[in-house]
Amino acid sequence: MLDQRLLPRQEIYRRYRDHHEVAEAIRAMVIRGAPAIGVAAAMGIALGALNATAAADEEFDAHFERVCNEMAAARPTAVNLFWAIDRMQGVYRNARPGGIGAVCAALIQEAVRMHAEDIEANRAMGRHGQVLIPDGARVLTHCNAGALATAGYGTALGVIRAAVEAGKRVEVYADETRPFLQGARLTAWELQKDGIPVTVITDGMAGHFMQAGRIDCVIVGADRIAANGDVANKIGTYSVAVLAKENRIPFYVAAPTSTFDLSMPDGSHIPIEERGAEEVRRIQGIPITSDDTQVANPAFDVTPNRYVSAIIAERGIARQPYLGNLRAMRSANSE
Amino acid sequence: MLDQRLLPRQEIYRRYRDHHEVAEAIRAMVIRGAPAIGVAAAMGIALGALNATAAADEEFDAHFERVCNEMAAARPTAVNLFWAIDRMQGVYRNARPGGIGAVCAALIQEAVRMHAEDIEANRAMGRHGQVLIPDGARVLTHCNAGALATAGYGTALGVIRAAVEAGKRVEVYADETRPFLQGARLTAWELQKDGIPVTVITDGMAGHFMQAGRIDCVIVGADRIAANGDVANKIGTYSVAVLAKENRIPFYVAAPTSTFDLSMPDGSHIPIEERGAEEVRRIQGIPITSDDTQVANPAFDVTPNRYVSAIIAERGIARQPYLGNLRAMRSANSE
Repeated sequence: MLDQRLLPRQEIYRRYRDHHEVAEAIRAMVIRGAPAIGVAAAMGIALGALNATAAADEEFDAHFERVCNEMAAARPTAVNLFWAIDRMQGVYRNARPGGIGAVCAALIQEAVRMHAEDIEANRAMGRHGQVLIPDGARVLTHCNAGALATAGYGTALGVIRAAVEAGKRVEVYADETRPFLQGARLTAWELQKDGIPVTVITDGMAGHFMQAGRIDCVIVGADRIAANGDVANKIGTYSVAVLAKENRIPFYVAAPTSTFDLSMPDGSHIPIEERGAEEVRRIQGIPITSDDTQVANPAFDVTPNRYVSAIIAERGIARQPYLGNLRAMRSANSE
Repeated sequence: MLDQRLLPRQEIYRRYRDHHEVAEAIRAMVIRGAPAIGVAAAMGIALGALNATAAADEEFDAHFERVCNEMAAARPTAVNLFWAIDRMQGVYRNARPGGIGAVCAALIQEAVRMHAEDIEANRAMGRHGQVLIPDGARVLTHCNAGALATAGYGTALGVIRAAVEAGKRVEVYADETRPFLQGARLTAWELQKDGIPVTVITDGMAGHFMQAGRIDCVIVGADRIAANGDVANKIGTYSVAVLAKENRIPFYVAAPTSTFDLSMPDGSHIPIEERGAEEVRRIQGIPITSDDTQVANPAFDVTPNRYVSAIIAERGIARQPYLGNLRAMRSANSE
């Protein structure tokens, strides 16, 4: 894994040899972004199974359950993690009669397939979503919903990439996204590598640029989308959505159907992760407050569906009413 | 001056011996906050006059004009700077016939008076404004409008202090306020010294806490208030105001009448300072983006009057319509 905590100053790849390390890498945000977490969890689970091939049959079942439980405890909000675990558990059940070797082969194959599928889903989202981006658009994004947050290409940034590939001129404004600085560190790094013009702004500047008529649309990713279209995403997304609506700017969410959680009727049920105080008290290890200053650190917020102009998924574009439209999209065959 | 760039980690006081140093301290934000900038400029001008007492009469007039011009160029948005220069120029004209010695004495006296008046204005704002803060209120503030931003006691934080002195329980949420981190570094430091409970949040969290019903009112300071009640204040204030309105939370501005600029019909005419890229690219000297990443750094934004529930000044509380009410307040005798 490319260690995202160190970008853009250092590009360090880390190799993990067991599922404990993978779960810890997810928890510590070496890797982050809902789709990337899903794929990493699948690979971690395959690794966990592989490391127990010498176990007796009953032990192997118990071990696999522990592997899945440990992975599920890594982070609570991105539903792709649980989606990936469910999928790996299904593969496990189907392959189990063939023995441990067959199970491991099937798990590896499934994880690799999920990696490829995620890239393909992002490409499809790009094709669907890029029609929403006008030529010459100045697009605001929050956090990082790019190649780094997925298996590749990106969700929100995938739509931007597809617009650029379609020959449109696109300029990106990237919220720096405190506390983890995904915008300043990751989105800018990705887009600069691709030669797409990007300007980093602090989170408090987004409203000012909207008010000044310098933003044409907003596009973000998602960590979990409830059945009614409420969107959990990186803390600060709700503020951006309210400001977009107030300034009559379209607010788009790009996310694969694996991010839909139709078991949640609305966003109020989505668990919001509270992360450690040090992420707020320090920036890159440097203290910005006193050590005893009280801070809060909710990692996500929920944007009610009324602020969401459209949800771009790999199967097309959903609009209001989301309750029926997301369900129809999820149950449809993949394109 | 207490060097506000170094708080809360270091409390270093700096002594300045000429007006160049004072202007540079204002520009570099050793001291900041509209009322504090006004008082510092007045003291810098008195220092500038004192340092030229050996000059010939005509040279002294030209020197004084250069001192005022240099001070005026330090920062563009906070109108208190220009208000202070105007006031010192008036004192100069009145005292000039008495000779250079009399001028210097009058300038020093005026600067000291402005310092005392500012503290008294803040105390009066506190008395007027604290009635708006309910017992048990959870109050959000942005940037630092405290003792550090004024000659003492504070504008927005003065209102909070007065509410606490009136026996109310008040809990403060402080936006960290990137890029300069006035909330994390200064507001938290001030309130912790006073034993007022404060929780620092990142700028993107403010909307989430409002949406969650955990904020009862917002109170901020101002750098310039136009005749119609549009408010220029630290970048990010506009976003907070929009989010407060969306969540039906009162949004108050506390500022002395020296912050009113009735020559500006509305906020669109207020000059917005663009500061250096390094403030965004680095935090406490540590790079968070690549050195070649493009950034923007507008230091202020303008909140249209329709988002402002009330303006608390030393002469009372103004509400809509601001156009008549601010003018009446400015021309009334001081209480």
